[in-house]
Amino acid sequence: MIDKEKILYYHRKAHGKTEIISRVLVEGKEDLSTYYTPGVSFVSDEIGKDPDKVYDYTTKSNTIAIISDCTRVLGLGDIGPKAGMPVMEGKAVLFKKFGAVDAIPICIDTKDEAEIIRLVRQIAPPFGGINLEDIESPKSFRIYQQLSKELDIPILHDDRQGTSVVVLAALINAIKLAKKNKDARIVVNGAGSAGFGITMQLVNSGFNNVIVLDKKGAIYKGREKDMNGFKAEIADFTNHEGKDGWIEDVVRDADVLIGASAGGAFKKDYITLMHEKPIVFALANPQPEISYEEAKNAGAYIVATGRSDMPNQVNNLLAFPGIMRGLLDCRAKRVTYRMLHHASLAIAKSVGKKLDPEFIIPTTLDREFAMKVIPKIAASVAEAAVTEKLARHNISYTEAKAKASRMIKRYHRIEKSTRRYMVGFEE
Amino acid sequence: MIDKEKILYYHRKAHGKTEIISRVLVEGKEDLSTYYTPGVSFVSDEIGKDPDKVYDYTTKSNTIAIISDCTRVLGLGDIGPKAGMPVMEGKAVLFKKFGAVDAIPICIDTKDEAEIIRLVRQIAPPFGGINLEDIESPKSFRIYQQLSKELDIPILHDDRQGTSVVVLAALINAIKLAKKNKDARIVVNGAGSAGFGITMQLVNSGFNNVIVLDKKGAIYKGREKDMNGFKAEIADFTNHEGKDGWIEDVVRDADVLIGASAGGAFKKDYITLMHEKPIVFALANPQPEISYEEAKNAGAYIVATGRSDMPNQVNNLLAFPGIMRGLLDCRAKRVTYRMLHHASLAIAKSVGKKLDPEFIIPTTLDREFAMKVIPKIAASVAEAAVTEKLARHNISYTEAKAKASRMIKRYHRIEKSTRRYMVGFEE
Repeated sequence: MIDKEKILYYHRKAHGKTEIISRVLVEGKEDLSTYYTPGVSFVSDEIGKDPDKVYDYTTKSNTIAIISDCTRVLGLGDIGPKAGMPVMEGKAVLFKKFGAVDAIPICIDTKDEAEIIRLVRQIAPPFGGINLEDIESPKSFRIYQQLSKELDIPILHDDRQGTSVVVLAALINAIKLAKKNKDARIVVNGAGSAGFGITMQLVNSGFNNVIVLDKKGAIYKGREKDMNGFKAEIADFTNHEGKDGWIEDVVRDADVLIGASAGGAFKKDYITLMHEKPIVFALANPQPEISYEEAKNAGAYIVATGRSDMPNQVNNLLAFPGIMRGLLDCRAKRVTYRMLHHASLAIAKSVGKKLDPEFIIPTTLDREFAMKVIPKIAASVAEAAVTEKLARHNISYTEAKAKASRMIKRYHRIEKSTRRYMVGFEE
Repeated sequence: MIDKEKILYYHRKAHGKTEIISRVLVEGKEDLSTYYTPGVSFVSDEIGKDPDKVYDYTTKSNTIAIISDCTRVLGLGDIGPKAGMPVMEGKAVLFKKFGAVDAIPICIDTKDEAEIIRLVRQIAPPFGGINLEDIESPKSFRIYQQLSKELDIPILHDDRQGTSVVVLAALINAIKLAKKNKDARIVVNGAGSAGFGITMQLVNSGFNNVIVLDKKGAIYKGREKDMNGFKAEIADFTNHEGKDGWIEDVVRDADVLIGASAGGAFKKDYITLMHEKPIVFALANPQPEISYEEAKNAGAYIVATGRSDMPNQVNNLLAFPGIMRGLLDCRAKRVTYRMLHHASLAIAKSVGKKLDPEFIIPTTLDREFAMKVIPKIAASVAEAAVTEKLARHNISYTEAKAKASRMIKRYHRIEKSTRRYMVGFEE
């Protein structure tokens, strides 16, 4: 039950959901002259001589910016930078709690694509990574592409990449259970941030039989109506037969139906038309394209949604803290489909023996997930970055896993020590 | 004794001097849906309807950005945004420790004046204030002026305003001891950030007999060589007799000599030429214009420097945490000379009965200063802002003092709880 007044009350009481503490003990004059003037000059000198040492000596090693122009916040749309702040702060809490990552929410007062790119480039020096959040598409794709070219730190576009990593993890386990394989016929409904991200990740992970639809129907090479650069990219890698038509036309004999569209977009009949053991991911939030029960009743073998009250919740939270943890710990220069593929494999594998049509992905609030699985996601990402020569620090899988685990445990201990100062404690 | 290797070691060990913690307890699904989706939408909605509520519901109420292009960092000059980070992080630690203010260091990758102004304007929404730091002058003045016009949050230029508040506080006590008054003849050597700031604050605080010199000699109305808009402003408010000449010409019969210039710039003879009970503030760092002992030996009645190993250390740390605390707690729209004047009065008054030529300003690392004086500085600033109708929140002096005190105490308790996780603990 969502109680609006209670939510507002807690937020008012907290006056913001994060705060800063010192990592160094400053108690006397000597400490002051070590961490501030005049001693700090030696540290500046070291970085001046070798700029990559900024990772050794500063918060860059563990800090990211959450950048949003707040044009596409949750279901609320273009609400402006001030109204977007509570959402970004919430995200910052999750980055720290689950990944021990320090995230600074920066909600910006411009919607202009070129200005956003320039701004992120100019404020990048203190940050080890950037998380683009709740920026309308396709602008968000272009910003992502341009910044990935210009900057030497990883840009994560969580609305797209976070979702696609979890969907891929769920799909890997779902096809295993259904005894399908990478030739499975996959229909993706929706070509926004999530739809584009899922599709391109699937294609780059070896799924070669994908068809994507937008509001104008199937996307195919040569379609003229309502295209853009990203739909053209989709057309290049999917729908090899060049099929045209609506969802009811292309869903026939499909193995997997993925919705990244809008609540209620799927009819029961679609599932009836599918191949045996239909896999249905209805990811629209808060209302899925088809409800869990309805999809099951229509014959779906495995169903996943964004709902926390149903089995198989596809939740970005499974992905972004671990991915960013790994990117920071190897001091990555970029993020690639291959790194994200390895993040998905780590998530899929973590289900282990519990694997069941009603349990294809882990539950995020599970303590084991935070303590055991996130370090594995981080280590898988770091290892892939090192292999791809996109890491400044050649950390091994074992080292990366141990480091992530240590940092997450350390933060949980700090949280325990500061619980009594938090809003919500003993109320 | 400054030990370079030890300083580097501690910085490497800390990997950055600040980190983020949660202010809210997130332990179960219900907490997640309160502080993140879907509950957080209600909070965004409230702010959407009334943007000023961003202060009630988000970190804006306690968070500032430390903005630097790192073109004038300490004695190091233009060292670039990465090398500047350790300094800005140190400042962030001090903001929190002494003022309970959350400060985010943002070292930026542009030196262009117009771009810096645009950047700060665009990232302003999450911040309740901006601290401009270590930006070369006179560019820093113009950035300050323009941002003060464009933004509805206070801009503090600590190199200028922080220093001038402490100098004014020291001067108020020095002239009291020397039985001088506001007609005292004051010579300011240096027209950079600090010199301009000190001069304009003194003039705005009622000192009307000031002469300022730069490298070309006394600044007067109508001087043609080496002027700029800020020196023209100085000329408008000082040197009413229009004197020309070098320091040895104008220092004759001066009551106060203030150096905001360079190490070694003052000769003993200058002091000999001054009026009785000479007051000498030699503020260049790390080496003052004249050493404490040398000035005393030359007959100075009161001497202040930037040195922590001598009496009367003029240290910005006395000013900026309390000023920003006050500006945040009244949700100020701007900062004015009048508010800063009240900050100086609070600092000067705090010396109380200890007032002596060797103790005209408090010691910053004194526990009493942090706990007792900073709340008074904050309350004085907040009260002045309310009087000037530049506050969103009409907080009283008493409320502001109590709030600042509560917040500083709270942070000290948090620090105590997290000491064992800090670098420097039990080593």
